[in-house]
Amino acid sequence: MAMQERALRTRKSLIHAAAAVFAEEGYVPSSLGTISKRAGVSNGALHFHFENKRALAQAVEDEAADAVRGLVRRADRTGASALQALVDTTCGLVDSLLDDIVVRAGFQLSAERALGPEARLLRTWHEWVEQALLGAEAEGQLAPGVSPDDTAAAIVAVTVGLEVLAGVDPQWLAERRIAGFWELLLPGIATEQVLASALPEAHEGRRSEAEEA
Amino acid sequence: MAMQERALRTRKSLIHAAAAVFAEEGYVPSSLGTISKRAGVSNGALHFHFENKRALAQAVEDEAADAVRGLVRRADRTGASALQALVDTTCGLVDSLLDDIVVRAGFQLSAERALGPEARLLRTWHEWVEQALLGAEAEGQLAPGVSPDDTAAAIVAVTVGLEVLAGVDPQWLAERRIAGFWELLLPGIATEQVLASALPEAHEGRRSEAEEA
Repeated sequence: MAMQERALRTRKSLIHAAAAVFAEEGYVPSSLGTISKRAGVSNGALHFHFENKRALAQAVEDEAADAVRGLVRRADRTGASALQALVDTTCGLVDSLLDDIVVRAGFQLSAERALGPEARLLRTWHEWVEQALLGAEAEGQLAPGVSPDDTAAAIVAVTVGLEVLAGVDPQWLAERRIAGFWELLLPGIATEQVLASALPEAHEGRRSEAEEA
Repeated sequence: MAMQERALRTRKSLIHAAAAVFAEEGYVPSSLGTISKRAGVSNGALHFHFENKRALAQAVEDEAADAVRGLVRRADRTGASALQALVDTTCGLVDSLLDDIVVRAGFQLSAERALGPEARLLRTWHEWVEQALLGAEAEGQLAPGVSPDDTAAAIVAVTVGLEVLAGVDPQWLAERRIAGFWELLLPGIATEQVLASALPEAHEGRRSEAEEA
């Protein structure tokens, strides 16, 4: 049991080290030697857990996908509206991209198609955003004429863009950036009723200013 | 004169070949041999024009920046409002990202910080978007309470995100994607007067649907 626990811990530290090295050096040029050194384990231990660099990258992307599913579940569990869950989850994702190197590297690997053209993590994220918007439409929260498809594309493009730009300056993943985006987007997509309710927190600032005007 | 012309043509084809190889293989793993072969010139000819891979990447980013400046100038020349010029230029940029491998590779190099942390092309683009929004604010086209800073960040994040996602599926750079984004964004940022005018073409669809409703 203690051995199993140690094996799990080694596996976890290898995934973490791989994520850090992929994020810093890029997937293609990074070496297994750098990763095992960073994890503080031998090359033999690395090969016990992962057949090759691709298997490590797959593990990073899988763990990032688990983290995204965790954010989605957390937002669903609050019983909030579909639109509120979407706002909360995108804000949570941006937080994770800033704080969790595995989520960050997972998105980068997916965007670089390191694991093939299907870019699974990005597709999972896109599909979930689309589902949330279809939910918001079904709940009558989207303004008439708003396309869930266009809206999902804009949200996915913004989250991917913020991650890439954070490589230049981490401030791009500051909470006010994604909150600012929602403040701009919500008036264009939500019904008057939703905008008038206290729901989308990100909209609060704009709304009270508009009321003063 | 004929020799100078030939030299210019060789230089241009090297920049084009480098952009294609960087975009396909990534900057770090790509080799000068692959680039000269693709351009159909000898290694000697490559070294006559460019000292190393970095100099080639710099030339790609510079030419991409020239193309962006060209788009900006074209939009300015129409005498349109600052907001219209911004809509037109982002649509033009997305077209260029789809059609012009040099613009595409220039943005990728800048996002990867291949030429250092300053990521000049992204900064140039961000600064111009910000200037356009300050112009729109000065012309009274932004709704009260709209932050030019937040709006510029959202626009830059979307354009960068669309470029990255197009690596997975070129459809992300289809015109309807960026037009769809403007349709969603404009109601949140423009004054009622601007929205009621025929100006931002991207908004037309939404507006007529809303009128029908």
